[in-house]
Amino acid sequence: MRSLVEKAEVLIEALPYIRRFFGKTIVIKYGGHAMLEADLRASFADDVVLLKYVGLRPVIVHGGGPQIARQLDRIGKQATFVDGLRVTDDETMEVVEMVLGGTVNREIVGLIQGAGGRAAGLTGCDGSLLRVEKKIIEGRDIGRVGQVINVDPTALSAVSEGGFVPVIAPIGLDESGLTYNVNADEAAGAIAVALGAEKFLLLTDVEGVLDGQGERVSEMTRSSTQKLIEDGIILGGMIPKVECCLSALAGGVSKAHIVDGRVSHAILLEMFTDDAGVGTVFTP
Amino acid sequence: MRSLVEKAEVLIEALPYIRRFFGKTIVIKYGGHAMLEADLRASFADDVVLLKYVGLRPVIVHGGGPQIARQLDRIGKQATFVDGLRVTDDETMEVVEMVLGGTVNREIVGLIQGAGGRAAGLTGCDGSLLRVEKKIIEGRDIGRVGQVINVDPTALSAVSEGGFVPVIAPIGLDESGLTYNVNADEAAGAIAVALGAEKFLLLTDVEGVLDGQGERVSEMTRSSTQKLIEDGIILGGMIPKVECCLSALAGGVSKAHIVDGRVSHAILLEMFTDDAGVGTVFTP
Amino acid sequence: MRSLVEKAEVLIEALPYIRRFFGKTIVIKYGGHAMLEADLRASFADDVVLLKYVGLRPVIVHGGGPQIARQLDRIGKQATFVDGLRVTDDETMEVVEMVLGGTVNREIVGLIQGAGGRAAGLTGCDGSLLRVEKKIIEGRDIGRVGQVINVDPTALSAVSEGGFVPVIAPIGLDESGLTYNVNADEAAGAIAVALGAEKFLLLTDVEGVLDGQGERVSEMTRSSTQKLIEDGIILGGMIPKVECCLSALAGGVSKAHIVDGRVSHAILLEMFTDDAGVGTVFTP
Amino acid sequence: MRSLVEKAEVLIEALPYIRRFFGKTIVIKYGGHAMLEADLRASFADDVVLLKYVGLRPVIVHGGGPQIARQLDRIGKQATFVDGLRVTDDETMEVVEMVLGGTVNREIVGLIQGAGGRAAGLTGCDGSLLRVEKKIIEGRDIGRVGQVINVDPTALSAVSEGGFVPVIAPIGLDESGLTYNVNADEAAGAIAVALGAEKFLLLTDVEGVLDGQGERVSEMTRSSTQKLIEDGIILGGMIPKVECCLSALAGGVSKAHIVDGRVSHAILLEMFTDDAGVGTVFTP
Amino acid sequence: MRSLVEKAEVLIEALPYIRRFFGKTIVIKYGGHAMLEADLRASFADDVVLLKYVGLRPVIVHGGGPQIARQLDRIGKQATFVDGLRVTDDETMEVVEMVLGGTVNREIVGLIQGAGGRAAGLTGCDGSLLRVEKKIIEGRDIGRVGQVINVDPTALSAVSEGGFVPVIAPIGLDESGLTYNVNADEAAGAIAVALGAEKFLLLTDVEGVLDGQGERVSEMTRSSTQKLIEDGIILGGMIPKVECCLSALAGGVSKAHIVDGRVSHAILLEMFTDDAGVGTVFTP
Amino acid sequence: MRSLVEKAEVLIEALPYIRRFFGKTIVIKYGGHAMLEADLRASFADDVVLLKYVGLRPVIVHGGGPQIARQLDRIGKQATFVDGLRVTDDETMEVVEMVLGGTVNREIVGLIQGAGGRAAGLTGCDGSLLRVEKKIIEGRDIGRVGQVINVDPTALSAVSEGGFVPVIAPIGLDESGLTYNVNADEAAGAIAVALGAEKFLLLTDVEGVLDGQGERVSEMTRSSTQKLIEDGIILGGMIPKVECCLSALAGGVSKAHIVDGRVSHAILLEMFTDDAGVGTVFTP
Repeated sequence: MRSLVEKAEVLIEALPYIRRFFGKTIVIKYGGHAMLEADLRASFADDVVLLKYVGLRPVIVHGGGPQIARQLDRIGKQATFVDGLRVTDDETMEVVEMVLGGTVNREIVGLIQGAGGRAAGLTGCDGSLLRVEKKIIEGRDIGRVGQVINVDPTALSAVSEGGFVPVIAPIGLDESGLTYNVNADEAAGAIAVALGAEKFLLLTDVEGVLDGQGERVSEMTRSSTQKLIEDGIILGGMIPKVECCLSALAGGVSKAHIVDGRVSHAILLEMFTDDAGVGTVFTP
Repeated sequence: MRSLVEKAEVLIEALPYIRRFFGKTIVIKYGGHAMLEADLRASFADDVVLLKYVGLRPVIVHGGGPQIARQLDRIGKQATFVDGLRVTDDETMEVVEMVLGGTVNREIVGLIQGAGGRAAGLTGCDGSLLRVEKKIIEGRDIGRVGQVINVDPTALSAVSEGGFVPVIAPIGLDESGLTYNVNADEAAGAIAVALGAEKFLLLTDVEGVLDGQGERVSEMTRSSTQKLIEDGIILGGMIPKVECCLSALAGGVSKAHIVDGRVSHAILLEMFTDDAGVGTVFTP
Repeated sequence: MRSLVEKAEVLIEALPYIRRFFGKTIVIKYGGHAMLEADLRASFADDVVLLKYVGLRPVIVHGGGPQIARQLDRIGKQATFVDGLRVTDDETMEVVEMVLGGTVNREIVGLIQGAGGRAAGLTGCDGSLLRVEKKIIEGRDIGRVGQVINVDPTALSAVSEGGFVPVIAPIGLDESGLTYNVNADEAAGAIAVALGAEKFLLLTDVEGVLDGQGERVSEMTRSSTQKLIEDGIILGGMIPKVECCLSALAGGVSKAHIVDGRVSHAILLEMFTDDAGVGTVFTP
Repeated sequence: MRSLVEKAEVLIEALPYIRRFFGKTIVIKYGGHAMLEADLRASFADDVVLLKYVGLRPVIVHGGGPQIARQLDRIGKQATFVDGLRVTDDETMEVVEMVLGGTVNREIVGLIQGAGGRAAGLTGCDGSLLRVEKKIIEGRDIGRVGQVINVDPTALSAVSEGGFVPVIAPIGLDESGLTYNVNADEAAGAIAVALGAEKFLLLTDVEGVLDGQGERVSEMTRSSTQKLIEDGIILGGMIPKVECCLSALAGGVSKAHIVDGRVSHAILLEMFTDDAGVGTVFTP
Repeated sequence: MRSLVEKAEVLIEALPYIRRFFGKTIVIKYGGHAMLEADLRASFADDVVLLKYVGLRPVIVHGGGPQIARQLDRIGKQATFVDGLRVTDDETMEVVEMVLGGTVNREIVGLIQGAGGRAAGLTGCDGSLLRVEKKIIEGRDIGRVGQVINVDPTALSAVSEGGFVPVIAPIGLDESGLTYNVNADEAAGAIAVALGAEKFLLLTDVEGVLDGQGERVSEMTRSSTQKLIEDGIILGGMIPKVECCLSALAGGVSKAHIVDGRVSHAILLEMFTDDAGVGTVFTP
Repeated sequence: MRSLVEKAEVLIEALPYIRRFFGKTIVIKYGGHAMLEADLRASFADDVVLLKYVGLRPVIVHGGGPQIARQLDRIGKQATFVDGLRVTDDETMEVVEMVLGGTVNREIVGLIQGAGGRAAGLTGCDGSLLRVEKKIIEGRDIGRVGQVINVDPTALSAVSEGGFVPVIAPIGLDESGLTYNVNADEAAGAIAVALGAEKFLLLTDVEGVLDGQGERVSEMTRSSTQKLIEDGIILGGMIPKVECCLSALAGGVSKAHIVDGRVSHAILLEMFTDDAGVGTVFTP
């Protein structure tokens, strides 16, 4: 049991961090276990609301892969593949919009409001927040998957200045007004750059970047990261996440973090303790 | 073919209306044919964008019954009934959220942006815009159908002051954070009252209110409306729409209109011509 | 007779123009027939009020030659000439001030207000709006005729931001505070430059610039204009008007127009239709 | 010759008055000798500019009777009379507009600017500042002479907040937009009431109100004034001036003054010395 | 040692309190041990800075009795008494000003700035913050001891809106500009009322109000307090402190607290834990 | 005795100066006789209040050497010397803080408020206004005497924009938060530079700079000043004052003045008369 004075000391310990981040924008990619397990959902919401109240400006960008898969399943939709790549055809895209824009986004707004905050959901279509073009991977058309080419943060800022935590579903628009599915990590990184965010936090289901000995690396630079990729130590799904962090830094974000979303209050820990605490931080 | 000068004269004819409504809020319930047919959709979007540009503040509240029915069908969901009333169970509510919040709302935002405006979609959950309680009809529980008990327009106003046309999906929240389906006419009326709107336009698929001879009544007061209801001339589905208009008036809205959404540019015609033009106008 | 729907379509056709010019300043030199015939006066006023209401910022600069001549006549004032040039002596200048500042300016304010707008009249003396020096033409002193050397738009902007259409009489001040008659085209052009206007419209009593075959040229550039002057096709009184347009462009105004003020709603037609419509447009 | 220290002491003596009137509106009716003699004109302009710089908000309303008479004379216009009252027919009204709006107003603006201030001229038509109806005196129509029925100070305030001293020519508009000559004292009083002015200063060509012994009365109340009128001591042209002051007080102006405009710096003396100094002050 | 997650949970526990007090003014009377011991001084400063950063508006009013006594001693000043009451003669008052305004106030500003905040010191003379009259106790003149009769918070608010924590020395001014010593508890209470503070915290050197059994009473109302006074259980120096709290409540402050300043982080504990935690809270 | 009209003329004579300095910041170093004699104190306060009311922004920085000496005396504190330089040890510094921050600063605030102004006192510690480092003179440590290395005018500006005359005691802070005594001339000059002041007025007890014949030099430039120093004509205590003026000019202040504080209303005379009037003005 904690004594009252110990509690006060914890608050005081947070003070230098609160001061450092006061008024700063923090973009958080929310997904994975942190979105699926009730306890982690609650601790995420608490963290976001606390950040907001102590003067930071959190912006949430969420994914929703498992929820989309479940709904496709429910309507008996078979996945189509082109040369081994999963294709987002029109029917799939309709489900993406329904699930990301209709279900998941609304739930996250509800979650934050349930924790005592005020939130408002947007998709990347609102005010043309995410302008995309069709992504062509190795010359192959994989349907309505978009690559972000421009971010117009006006709608997001209106909501944020109105006192709300913006919650963004990563759906983009091309020039003709057609909607596209956007990778949530990518969308979040691009939004962090557009907002000149202080930090970009990418919640994942791993401990962080691991080195050759399987030990978590607490801090990395561009060059040490390149080396780990070249040496084949950073592999597979971790590569795009790492690249997403590096390109956020290249776009002017001060620090990017890969954070273990399976840990309670992972966001607070990453924000309000020294960098070695949890996950991996990338610095320019 | 119209000559240039005739065109200019049409613009000039609109001037007194533009002047009268400058800076005023106009809440439009959008639904029915106007939402389903391509031509009418385009003319609706043009009208909204024009209103915005000439200095009015349009706010759109939409329904989506047919789209919800189609999706329920697709997933093979059977309707449940309690004493003959259709029930919104949890599974149905999930579909409502997906379709209203994910598909329909996004499409209307896209429609307005395609016509050159800027729009942002919200649900009644964002910023607790629509606070509801469970609707009990004649003592029967029909599931997650909500009755609006409070409107907090902060999020809507933030979006509107940011220069966007707010597009609202009528999903509400009860005190515990549970979502409810809200009748779109009701939601729109309540929002019109909360915003102190100048006008409330309810797009329908009928010509207006008809009198005993089947002739459209162009203007009605509270008492003349009561009489037509008592005399059994206003019937069935028209009764709640008429009551929705009357309660908007009671809440301080200056004029409420039932407008024939099957007519091209019905909104402009109702706004920028004399009241006898189209539909039925209700005055206090 | 126009149907209601045709009317709505005309409004919708104007939308792209309204959008393009939203919040932009349009300086209009008002004079000639458009000022003298009752119908044209009314259509001018309607046009200005419409521009104001749909979000543009019209600024009116007027002349008044015929009204000055009539008043000089009435008081039996003989024109004086130096080497063939009409001289503005002190007595004439007094009449200029009375007629431009007292009669014509007030009438235009009344005209715009009669059409439902709000207007306020200023002379170039108010807040030292038009600072001039004595114009010397080919070494000859022609009295109190001023050349604009500085524009201080503070008073004009105060009036405009207060929601009024500024109406300016082209009377200028030299450094000693002496008043001078300023050519209205010149004054309007200088004001357009000082305000960073989007458009400068010069109402005249001709169809536009004519080419060698007597056909109206709908669009001209600096070089095509120079050529027509060199070839002796643009002649006489048209030359200073054309030069006024070119120097407005040189000062940063986006487009300058010579508009046929004898046509009803000439301003609206020029603003809200494609450039080939009426008059001649000059682009950089 | 004054020593430097004596000068400083004079400035210090003014301090309590500057403090008392800081940010307050002072409406000054300007006319008579103060407008016609060069020295007095200069001292008037200096006074107004000083008031403006030390933080007061002077508003000038001017007459122009002698200048109008001279111009009528010049064009050989004969006065018309109805039952002994001078009539303002249309031709006279045209001269009134030219002289008040074109000549006199412009000259006063120039005068203030010559003394280092910034001024802008308006007539009562600008922004419908003075709304009037035809004055009927003892059942007789005396032409275009207006009685103020409403003051809309928006245009005046825009000019004043822009940092300019507003200079107002007393020409009013009736509901149809027809112009009327308004008595300048009356116009100034009505404007003082509309602006919630702290003081109303009426410059005249007399020493102040005189009592039965021909002595100036330095301070009067409503009741002492009534008594002097009933006793036949206040007579003739002084009666409307006195009534003008009383109705300014009735409208909420704190103090009204009849000031001897033949004295140099009469305004400063009245503002910055004790009330007994010059003229007659009326208090509620 | 605390784990990281426990730390995060402490922060989250504080959230409801942060939310409740966001933007609210908290007036803190600072004195006693909390001002004299180094550890407590540091914990006080940390607490104030944290409150400021999480969005509250702390205002500090300090005493300085021991420091004044020490200085009087140093200059060999003998206390004077009138009928047993200590008198503040002119020489004593000079010392009060030097010590409170010169030494103590400056030190507290330095303390808060050392903890990373921004502070600015004022006395009750600045901007006539504390207007007083001479206190007469039972008919006896005890010198320059003042009773607060008016609070003008303009200077304090300027400093606070500039982002600084205002630190106030309780010296007041009478109408003639003479300075007076003001009891710090009284000054703080009056300032809390004038600012419409949410809370008034009175740091003391006792545990709180004790009941008949010597147990701390955690919450009291006006009537329960009266009773304890009447029953002779609240005694001596505690009576004026309790009355100070009651009159803050009477003036509209929501809650007043007597807090044990000998406990580390007493302010945070009182603000961010339930009321039963430490000290005694008074509610209306 | 001055007549009323002469008084008005004095006010008018001040107008060009009021106009020139409107809205400008004037930093005044206040000290010497002007602070010690009752008449001069009153005239100083009147001058400051007048400057404030006519739209200037006076900022006062004061010294207090005689008052500090008197207090050191009273407590029997012996001066300590290192190589002939007076040392500010900790005990002396405590007295400096008490006297400058507690007594003198409060008195000047009271003086200005007694003259009808509103003032607020600050020390250089408030908001870290004066950041200093220890001054080392010819390699010798003379204790807590500070050299200004940075000025943060935020707190001063908050007070000034709140409508108060800021009164600054020259106590500075080093990086560790330790306080230092700062030469008031130096502090005032540094503040004038940081505020981009229009003028810097240094009140002294001499007539101004004297030339070789003992005549006051009314105006000096950098080079003429250097020459007088090199020629040994400017001597002793005048040298640092002159250098203080030159470095204010180097920092962008438009004019620096050494003013004879023994003359009544010296500030007004220097501000509102031509430069030859009193004291010595330094121009770049």
